[in-house]
Amino acid sequence: IDHSFGPFYEEIEVGAIVVATGFELYPLKDIPEYGGGEIPDVIDALQFERLLAASGPTGGVVRRPSDGKIPKSVAFVHWVRSRDPEHGLLYCSGLCCMYLVKEAILYKQSVPDGKAFSFYIDIRTNGKGYEEFYERARENYDIVFIRGKPARIVQNGDKVQVWGTDTLTGNTIKLDVDMVVLAPAMIPSQSALELIKKLRLATDEYGWVKEQHLKLRPLEAMTSGIFIAGVAQYPKDITDTVAQASGAASKVLDLFSQPQIKRSPIIARVDADMCAGCGYCEKACAYEAIKVDPVLRVSQVNAALCEGCGACAAACPSGAVQLTNFFKNQLLAMVVEATREYE
Amino acid sequence: IDHSFGPFYEEIEVGAIVVATGFELYPLKDIPEYGGGEIPDVIDALQFERLLAASGPTGGVVRRPSDGKIPKSVAFVHWVRSRDPEHGLLYCSGLCCMYLVKEAILYKQSVPDGKAFSFYIDIRTNGKGYEEFYERARENYDIVFIRGKPARIVQNGDKVQVWGTDTLTGNTIKLDVDMVVLAPAMIPSQSALELIKKLRLATDEYGWVKEQHLKLRPLEAMTSGIFIAGVAQYPKDITDTVAQASGAASKVLDLFSQPQIKRSPIIARVDADMCAGCGYCEKACAYEAIKVDPVLRVSQVNAALCEGCGACAAACPSGAVQLTNFFKNQLLAMVVEATREYE
Repeated sequence: IDHSFGPFYEEIEVGAIVVATGFELYPLKDIPEYGGGEIPDVIDALQFERLLAASGPTGGVVRRPSDGKIPKSVAFVHWVRSRDPEHGLLYCSGLCCMYLVKEAILYKQSVPDGKAFSFYIDIRTNGKGYEEFYERARENYDIVFIRGKPARIVQNGDKVQVWGTDTLTGNTIKLDVDMVVLAPAMIPSQSALELIKKLRLATDEYGWVKEQHLKLRPLEAMTSGIFIAGVAQYPKDITDTVAQASGAASKVLDLFSQPQIKRSPIIARVDADMCAGCGYCEKACAYEAIKVDPVLRVSQVNAALCEGCGACAAACPSGAVQLTNFFKNQLLAMVVEATREYE
Repeated sequence: IDHSFGPFYEEIEVGAIVVATGFELYPLKDIPEYGGGEIPDVIDALQFERLLAASGPTGGVVRRPSDGKIPKSVAFVHWVRSRDPEHGLLYCSGLCCMYLVKEAILYKQSVPDGKAFSFYIDIRTNGKGYEEFYERARENYDIVFIRGKPARIVQNGDKVQVWGTDTLTGNTIKLDVDMVVLAPAMIPSQSALELIKKLRLATDEYGWVKEQHLKLRPLEAMTSGIFIAGVAQYPKDITDTVAQASGAASKVLDLFSQPQIKRSPIIARVDADMCAGCGYCEKACAYEAIKVDPVLRVSQVNAALCEGCGACAAACPSGAVQLTNFFKNQLLAMVVEATREYE
């Protein structure tokens, strides 16, 4: 490895793209009820990971940020802005349960006389060996699991106070701890959103890349030739990411192994007499397959790029664009037949 | 499709195998506390799926097995023998939460004035769109979720009675319903266990196929040339199975795309003078790579099959088998160096 390499840009032509853009954590500053990033000893799980690392800022000794003391009690908070449609996101971030349990175990290994508390709504350990890991955390490491999401976290002298309710006992909780580790929701990274826009990929409302079919075609983006791996699609752990990445590779190989690419015969066609060159179709096309000819002022279709999605036909105000082999009258005939009453 | 085809056996030579043996449900007869399969209106989720199917025995009308009546109340029980190390299995079966929620929604669509109750420990909806689906079940379909695993299920007249505790309110529950749908734990199918034995694959204590590394090599079985897809590895849903199957395909392509297969230079070697032909090595080898020559009474290694795992060397009572390029004295030298005290 040549460490003297600086960043550089290179233009390369490719036949396929695998989008593997990963994630960011929901920023602490946007979580006011837990201190909004202002309480030094309330950190996120990635920051805690650094405190655990031998190559990290504390040389692997867990020290809390405010005064460098070894924290004798730590609260781990699952479900921060995940499954919280009122303040955050509706979805589950998928891996927080497992990595927070791991971090709690590592904390207890580092500070054996320390106390670890885990606040959760549901514990999600569906994966090979995951339940066993969670069992170990409770049995061997004496980590206290409390069902209930903290309502507030505040500074209290040199302690951090966690307010909440134990929903199993019904007791209200005010717990003073030395440090709090949050597992904020996973969100698509901002740079990913830029790339996704550039690739004209379809996404869901949160910015995760949309697949062609969640169950049957989870590896293919809506744009052909583009495949998805890892958290770009939605939060998933390393096991699932590695398996999916191999799957995406096989889809690329499949694409490249064909001597010719067979296309669906349904592609857009422009009636030049009707086309006013308004350009609505050009804006609607995700594949850059239809463009207004600047001289003729008439839209023209690049048959090799067209995916036959019909967005241009729907956008065309004059009906000049239709899909070859799938004209409106064909569609109407199908509707008539489907709704015909039989005796 | 030629439906007149009968079953037939064919011997084919292959260069790689993808093990995709699926699963069975934990049998109702082994669940005495829920009636042990003796209560006709306590069925498992697969049987309920058939009741929902338009091509099923009831033509898609949900009718309970005992008397064919349309059930006006149904209890759906998550976590039957999953995460229950005392009576069943420690692991989580991964998909029950989602398919039981689906079945409850389909029941409510089929019987809009029916009541659906869902008994759970943790709700596990970590997957794209899964939490949204669960939300819909609660909001739009009015399915009542009760946190607590039923203790017993008994026949009560023409009703089925579910005994349990709501662990959130602390209330004990005796609920009379027309039918109960259980989600028993997923277990490897018996035929899979036979095949796995034949392929000499490593498995975990439950019979799920062991992968080379859960995070980094989840697609490769411990025996090279054999890959894993789907629930053969551990319970996973359709999305993950499809992604993993594509991944397994790419591993096969990777294997086949090489003009020559490169092997590790560490393979077993037999010192013929020391070998007593006891055959312990033969029994220990997972790859059938070492065999006692019946004439010479000395073990011989098939270098092409040997994976260099060292099982034979460990099993050899006389020390006649060692690994080429990884002799015992090399290993000892490494231990000495690793434990040497530096000044």
